[in-house]
Amino acid sequence: MTQPIAQKEIDDLLSRLDARDLSRATIRQSVAVTNALEQMTGEKFSHLEIGVPGLPPCQVGVDAQKAALDRHVSSIYPPIGGIAPLKENAARFVEAFVGTKVTPECVVPTVGSMQGCFNLLLEGSRLDPKKDTILFLDPGFPAQHAQANVLGIPSQSFDLYQYRAEKLGPKLEEYFKQGNIAAILESNPNDPACVCRTDEELRTIGELATKYDVIVLEDMAYMCMDFRQDLSHPFQPPYQASVSHYTDNYVMMMSASKIFSYAGERLGIVVFSPALFNREYPHLRELYGMGRMGDNYILTFLYVASSGTSHSAQHAVAAMLGAAADGTLDFVDELEEYGRRARIVKELFTRNGFHIIYDRDNDRPIGDGFFFTVGYGTMNNRDIITNLMRCGVATISLLTAYSEQSGVRVCVSALSTDEQFQVLDQRLKMFNEYFKDCK
Amino acid sequence: MTQPIAQKEIDDLLSRLDARDLSRATIRQSVAVTNALEQMTGEKFSHLEIGVPGLPPCQVGVDAQKAALDRHVSSIYPPIGGIAPLKENAARFVEAFVGTKVTPECVVPTVGSMQGCFNLLLEGSRLDPKKDTILFLDPGFPAQHAQANVLGIPSQSFDLYQYRAEKLGPKLEEYFKQGNIAAILESNPNDPACVCRTDEELRTIGELATKYDVIVLEDMAYMCMDFRQDLSHPFQPPYQASVSHYTDNYVMMMSASKIFSYAGERLGIVVFSPALFNREYPHLRELYGMGRMGDNYILTFLYVASSGTSHSAQHAVAAMLGAAADGTLDFVDELEEYGRRARIVKELFTRNGFHIIYDRDNDRPIGDGFFFTVGYGTMNNRDIITNLMRCGVATISLLTAYSEQSGVRVCVSALSTDEQFQVLDQRLKMFNEYFKDCK
Repeated sequence: MTQPIAQKEIDDLLSRLDARDLSRATIRQSVAVTNALEQMTGEKFSHLEIGVPGLPPCQVGVDAQKAALDRHVSSIYPPIGGIAPLKENAARFVEAFVGTKVTPECVVPTVGSMQGCFNLLLEGSRLDPKKDTILFLDPGFPAQHAQANVLGIPSQSFDLYQYRAEKLGPKLEEYFKQGNIAAILESNPNDPACVCRTDEELRTIGELATKYDVIVLEDMAYMCMDFRQDLSHPFQPPYQASVSHYTDNYVMMMSASKIFSYAGERLGIVVFSPALFNREYPHLRELYGMGRMGDNYILTFLYVASSGTSHSAQHAVAAMLGAAADGTLDFVDELEEYGRRARIVKELFTRNGFHIIYDRDNDRPIGDGFFFTVGYGTMNNRDIITNLMRCGVATISLLTAYSEQSGVRVCVSALSTDEQFQVLDQRLKMFNEYFKDCK
Repeated sequence: MTQPIAQKEIDDLLSRLDARDLSRATIRQSVAVTNALEQMTGEKFSHLEIGVPGLPPCQVGVDAQKAALDRHVSSIYPPIGGIAPLKENAARFVEAFVGTKVTPECVVPTVGSMQGCFNLLLEGSRLDPKKDTILFLDPGFPAQHAQANVLGIPSQSFDLYQYRAEKLGPKLEEYFKQGNIAAILESNPNDPACVCRTDEELRTIGELATKYDVIVLEDMAYMCMDFRQDLSHPFQPPYQASVSHYTDNYVMMMSASKIFSYAGERLGIVVFSPALFNREYPHLRELYGMGRMGDNYILTFLYVASSGTSHSAQHAVAAMLGAAADGTLDFVDELEEYGRRARIVKELFTRNGFHIIYDRDNDRPIGDGFFFTVGYGTMNNRDIITNLMRCGVATISLLTAYSEQSGVRVCVSALSTDEQFQVLDQRLKMFNEYFKDCK
């Protein structure tokens, strides 16, 4: 590719796919466009749009899962609340890496964090008839907004870009004072920006959540990937940033997909604070005949959603969580590969005229992790994603992540070889030469 | 156990568990009562309440799943619409055993039929703003009623007991004429009674479904378990009874749990009629930006529910479906073991004064399969389940299956040895001696 693909080619493809523009296209439409352009040009694109693990699965997990299959667990319904070794090892893991104590009872496996979040939004919106709304701290993972939409749950959101540090508290309180917020959803480090809230911000969120009796749903899909500090030593600080240090009104969602590269088996865990797990909600009792939040999560919601999650994969994840807590599996060290890739790819973008959009966690530059966000001068959302595509670089628009900034999300997981980095460099250079006047 | 446990013991246990009576207890409360009584008496009860596979998993599946894990599928997100070998083998399997042709595109794996049904109820109620109600042909699987309840979807139901043969059509039409029925749910053979609708009844359902544009959700959890005919030969009649022979408005749900004794891995498949899969619904397009029923099922509903189902288990089920269609895995022969157990256990109940409630499919006695239903004279729901429990026999009340008859469901999967049958015989004899005056 020596010059960008003609704009008309992309416009024609989009109109054939019944899509308005690339910045608002569904993932399926984007993939169809990329496939068609790859066929047309005969070149493989730089795939920065895909948020999939780029590492092999942890062998500890594979071995444990095969051994469980040999014990014939595949014929036996899994307990919906999870097998004992998973619950016990997960509780140890949480204490080891988050520094928060929970009992095994409070840990529940789900079919990925996707199922975990779906059912937390559902249950969260039914705890109290006055509180039916979810507040999203954006930018975030678009699928979670889609969950609220499919379930018909009202939601509100704001872009954290302008509300960091001391501006966060008053903004949150504006919403909480309405009286209708059941839960807020936040993530550290987050998708799409690798933003990590500081301890002061987490304290603010936690204290206000307690004050207004709002539940904090904390998505830990990328936990321990803030490589600015060494989070790899079990049972030793520093620990993964978490609102659980500042309130009892938390539920954490963890996923084996990224931290153990185990996305294929769809295994996540939901970790309730013991206070919430055991809390009696009269409205739940009225609706479902049981009052406790934890009981309903398992016996009302997960039961009808799928009656539990893969029995053999529960053994895999139990083994990986246990080995990590024991210090025999250094999963953080394995993940540091994403940090290496991010440093290289960020340098390629900034050298070629782009800037990092969500660039700081208050006083510190953001960490190098799974994702980052870039803009190009004042180029708008639609033009930046389209022009990158014309240069053979596939990304995701920040519009779809509910950001108010103009730019794209870059995911580094699919790039690993020097050749891939060189090709990306050439394409970004071409972009910068061709479009510098539109900056 | 030489005489029934005192009624007071059971009343005390129930009051401690905050439960009204055994016929309305949740499964969890029942299990707690049984456990407590087993501890108290030091005897293991006859467990006729549990609907779990009582056979080892198909080895074809175990081997394929382990091989897939060795190929590292556990690190790779599964396609939400399913891996190609699963879709292809499932389409062949459906033609081989149901005698209905579908394309691989129309087959979608789910986290058990539970997830399949959950999302079919959800999507079914959103196809047309005028049609929001599900009609259940009961008695049926209580969890499916619970799904509608959790989702806030209106439902209606009737007990098929009095509406067989020529009475079925007019009854169905009463409901369909209301104009609000989106879908009906039915199952052959059904839980809890092993009732199998005749071809004439299925023709009636199919033709009315077409006439009133209602979707038939056909739960095939116990497919090929009507042992009154030999359904074991692929691509040869007789085929599994199915409404798909009489209408294009069908969606079948199949599950690996019972037919391949693979309940642990939570793997089901949903099989859309090609006409429905490709049908455009303007209301879906308005809500989700996509119009086709199949696209929305996969990309809107399953995406946010769990983003697909276990990658390695998809390979297991692909292998089992393929081997069954090839005729190298005679899964029907393996399942015939449940028929043997049912014949023995039915004889024990009838010899000791019980009668089969749902006893005929019009002109024929019902088949011997996974379940059957029994009553005892005019003894009411509450007394029959409680008195059986007092004699060491745990069952499930027909009340919970939305039946209007008084009696219990007996599941034969957990009984297999001569000793277990003898113990059950003694307990039923004790029941009949002790309670014959209450008949």
